[in-house]
Amino acid sequence: MKTIGIIGGMGPLATADLYKKITVNTAADCDQEQIHIVIDSNTAIPDRTRNIIADGADPVPEMTKSIQRLTQCGADFLIMPCNTAHFFYDRLCAVSPVPILNMLNATVDYIKETFGPGKTVGLLATDGTIQSGIYDTYLKNAGMNVVKPVQNQAKVMEFIYDGIKKNNLDIGIDGLMAAAEEMQAMGAEIFILGCTELSAATDYYHFDERFVDPLLVLSKKSIVEAGARVR
Amino acid sequence: MKTIGIIGGMGPLATADLYKKITVNTAADCDQEQIHIVIDSNTAIPDRTRNIIADGADPVPEMTKSIQRLTQCGADFLIMPCNTAHFFYDRLCAVSPVPILNMLNATVDYIKETFGPGKTVGLLATDGTIQSGIYDTYLKNAGMNVVKPVQNQAKVMEFIYDGIKKNNLDIGIDGLMAAAEEMQAMGAEIFILGCTELSAATDYYHFDERFVDPLLVLSKKSIVEAGARVR
Repeated sequence: MKTIGIIGGMGPLATADLYKKITVNTAADCDQEQIHIVIDSNTAIPDRTRNIIADGADPVPEMTKSIQRLTQCGADFLIMPCNTAHFFYDRLCAVSPVPILNMLNATVDYIKETFGPGKTVGLLATDGTIQSGIYDTYLKNAGMNVVKPVQNQAKVMEFIYDGIKKNNLDIGIDGLMAAAEEMQAMGAEIFILGCTELSAATDYYHFDERFVDPLLVLSKKSIVEAGARVR
Repeated sequence: MKTIGIIGGMGPLATADLYKKITVNTAADCDQEQIHIVIDSNTAIPDRTRNIIADGADPVPEMTKSIQRLTQCGADFLIMPCNTAHFFYDRLCAVSPVPILNMLNATVDYIKETFGPGKTVGLLATDGTIQSGIYDTYLKNAGMNVVKPVQNQAKVMEFIYDGIKKNNLDIGIDGLMAAAEEMQAMGAEIFILGCTELSAATDYYHFDERFVDPLLVLSKKSIVEAGARVR
């Protein structure tokens, strides 16, 4: 089996979440049948959104240090449990001696394989991810349409920042669902939970199969890529 | 702040649990204020119990590889989220260029500081951990008495193997509590959740403050050792 390297710490909870998702979704009867995983929870990586939409420091040099550490430890391929970090994907591939599995590509492929081509996809994400336009490119290249909340985007932000980030589950998912309904009225048939806080929310609230969790998609793709079987 | 190295994969879920416990218990307002953590989830490490109570392979050579990888990545000190692995603690210290925080020592120190000296402590753990006698030495050296379930040890094993390991929460904690009551009748005032599956159970069931979780104790001690503050 191959060794997985996780460029982590963006943030640490999402990294722990991906690590757990890989573990529970691997068909293994004992520890020794699980995949060898190396994690660099590198919290020195500067804030990605602040670099994309403002004048924050470039995160690539510090991410490059993580790539070096993980490949020194024997990682055969790398993954990043952060949607926004994929804005820097091409620059990271240019400096990495091993492949980096692209979570956004994997998510778009999954949608195409599961629901068929040419779908209209609604994006649930932070203002930063939406403004960066990172998902748009992948979805459009795959022949899909992308829609985003307008009236209810503030409710998505409220759910992420005042709900999940503060561990306040009393917030409920009505606000998030209002954003999904708004996008459904624009033709959206599938919704991407395009923020790791929304991935984390799948532990606490029920989302039907139209809601796609990129961290879960990435965990299963990583298991297969490493040479193990998905449970 | 110092970098924490986690000798992980014994098993991976306990490792993810410790990583999450460190993250949520660190006083940090953003990713950048969290501690740099490197994890080697080394599932090639042979089963510890099988080496201690039968003729299974020696886990120390593979654990030594993890120590090398983690210190190459800059780890300033190491921790192990596995009670049984501490059976090999002295041998690992002999080959490690950096200190290894001892989870069992930390737990015994915590009990002494929190509840006072000379207590009688009940051990909730697998047959393997109990037979290895690893907790006994630490508790006795600290001037404490240790008691173990006799009639209800099978119920502890059932809770761990048929309950938590199988994600079967319907099992409830009556069996585990019967073991605690049996030890209480022998004079136990405090109980150690001396198995990482029992640490995981604290997410699902309520345990009062007499039940000490070594993973939680280790997470807080690691935060302080790294130079951060406990939330």
